[in-house]
Amino acid sequence: MSRPDWIALDWGTTNLRGWAMRRDGSVIEARTSDRGMGSLGPETFEAALREICAGWLDYGTVPIIACGMVGARQGWVEAAYTRVPCPPLSPSLTRVPGALDVSIIPGLSQADPADVMRGEETQAAGFLALNPGWDGVLCMPGSHSKWAHLSAGEVVSFRSFMTGELFAALATRTVLRHSVPAEGWDEDAFDAAVAETLSRPERLASALFTIRAKDILHGQDGARARSRLSGLLIGAELAAAKPYWLGQQIGVIGAGGLASLYVRALAAQGAPATQANATATTLAGLTAAWKQRTSS
Amino acid sequence: MSRPDWIALDWGTTNLRGWAMRRDGSVIEARTSDRGMGSLGPETFEAALREICAGWLDYGTVPIIACGMVGARQGWVEAAYTRVPCPPLSPSLTRVPGALDVSIIPGLSQADPADVMRGEETQAAGFLALNPGWDGVLCMPGSHSKWAHLSAGEVVSFRSFMTGELFAALATRTVLRHSVPAEGWDEDAFDAAVAETLSRPERLASALFTIRAKDILHGQDGARARSRLSGLLIGAELAAAKPYWLGQQIGVIGAGGLASLYVRALAAQGAPATQANATATTLAGLTAAWKQRTSS
Repeated sequence: MSRPDWIALDWGTTNLRGWAMRRDGSVIEARTSDRGMGSLGPETFEAALREICAGWLDYGTVPIIACGMVGARQGWVEAAYTRVPCPPLSPSLTRVPGALDVSIIPGLSQADPADVMRGEETQAAGFLALNPGWDGVLCMPGSHSKWAHLSAGEVVSFRSFMTGELFAALATRTVLRHSVPAEGWDEDAFDAAVAETLSRPERLASALFTIRAKDILHGQDGARARSRLSGLLIGAELAAAKPYWLGQQIGVIGAGGLASLYVRALAAQGAPATQANATATTLAGLTAAWKQRTSS
Repeated sequence: MSRPDWIALDWGTTNLRGWAMRRDGSVIEARTSDRGMGSLGPETFEAALREICAGWLDYGTVPIIACGMVGARQGWVEAAYTRVPCPPLSPSLTRVPGALDVSIIPGLSQADPADVMRGEETQAAGFLALNPGWDGVLCMPGSHSKWAHLSAGEVVSFRSFMTGELFAALATRTVLRHSVPAEGWDEDAFDAAVAETLSRPERLASALFTIRAKDILHGQDGARARSRLSGLLIGAELAAAKPYWLGQQIGVIGAGGLASLYVRALAAQGAPATQANATATTLAGLTAAWKQRTSS
C-alpha cells in the first residue's frame, strides 16, 4: 500500500470511519468500525484511533483531520463551537495534544434559538466544495435532523429536530411498540401521514395514539403503522422547517432510505430537492479542511 | 371488621387498588398494591385478587366490581369496548368465569378518529354521579391523557394524547436525558413553554432540541429544562385539544401535581377548570356500576 498523505476521520457517537487519503483527494483505503465515542472512555481514544489507522502510520507522522463527536465535551478534546453566521469550516482546527497529529473540525452554534451541530458542518462544507457558489437550504436527516440555510459561503442559521430519536423512542419505548414492527413499509400510509401533520401540525400528539387504537380496534397492518409513525413525525418536522425550505433551493444529504423519504415528502409539497451522498459529502468536507490546513 | 357488601377494584397496568365497601357507598377499608396487570400472567390474576381482598372474602361470596386494564385483551377477561356516543357506564358488565363474583366495566371505543379508553370511562361515570346533569369536557391527564366530551349523560366523543409517555421517553431515552433531571420545577419556564407550543404547535419538533442546546451552550438549570419539556408537551396537547375545551365547562380529574399543571395552563388561556380527585371519582364510578348491577 502506498503511504497516505493524510487521514480523514468521521468519529461520531456510534461509528468511527477512517480513510487513507492521497494529496489529490482520492481514497487509498476506507475502513469502518463500531468504536464510536459513545462506547469509549478517554483512556481508549488513542488506541481506537491507532486501530482504525493500522498500517497507515507505519511510515511516520501523517496529518489526521477529524470531525464529529470526537470534538464534543464528552469527546477526546473539546473543539469550541464557532457561532453562526460563519463559513461551515472554521479557519482554525483544534489540535489533540500528543504524538499523533490530529486536528478536529469545530462544530457550529447558534445563540437564538439556541442550537448546536457537530459533524454536519463538515457535510455542509463538503456540499459547498462539491457545489461551489451554491445558495439554499441543506437538510441533513438523522437522529437529530439539521436544516441549515447557506448563503454566500456561510451558514446563516440552522435548526435541529429530534425526529429520528423521537421515532426510535416512540417505536420501542411506548405503548406503540406493540403496534409498530421493526420492519415493513407502506408508501401510501407514509404520504397520508406526512400530509396530515404538515397541514395540521397541532394534531401530532393525538395522531400518535391513533396508531395504537387502530391496531386494537381493527388490527391495523404493522407496515402501515410503522410508515404512519414515520410520516407523522417527518410531516411535523417539515411543518416546523417550512420557513427554511419554502421557495428555496434544497439539498438533502443522506444515504438511501431516510433521505429519500424527505425528498419524497418535499416533492409532494411541490418542493424539489437534490439528494447528495452523505459519505461523499463528509469526505469532501474533510478534504476541504485538510487543504485549508495545508495552505495556511 | 364488618362484612363488606361489595368490593371495588381499580386494576390498571401498574397498580391494583381495592376497597371493601358498604351498601351506602362508604369505605370500610382501602388497600393498594403494585400487582398491576403489566407485572402479572394469567395464572396469577386470581391469586393477586385474593391477596388484595385478604379477609374480605371470609364471610362468603362478595360481589366485586372492577375497572381498568383487567378488562383488556391482555387482561384477565376481555370486556369488549362500548362504542361512543353512549353513557360512560355500559349497562352490561363482563363476568369473570370462576368461583369469585367479579364483574368488569367495559372500556369505550370510537370509530373515527380511532380511539379507545379503559378505566377513564369509570372516572367519567363517577364524575357524572358526583355532578348530576353536568355537561362539558373532562380532561384526564396521565400516560395517555384523555379528553372526553360529555353531554346529556353520554360520552359524545373523546381523544387520547400520549403526553405522559412522551415526556417519560424523551426525558429518559433520548439525548435530553443528559439535560432533564428526575426532580426540580420552575413555574415560569413551564408557563412560557405552554404558551409557546399552544400558539405555535408546529414548533414542538424543533423546540425540544433547544432544551439540550441551551444546556450545552449556557448550562441551563435542570429544573428549567424539566419544566420546559413538560410545558412544551402539555402546550402541544392543549393546542390539539382546543376544539374540545374552547368555550366549554372543563373538569380536570387527577391527583395533585399533574392535574394542577393542566388547570394552571388552561387558566392562562382564560379557560377555568374544576379539579376533581381521581380516587374519589373512580370510586364513585365503581359505586355507580355496583348500584346499577344491584338494581337490574
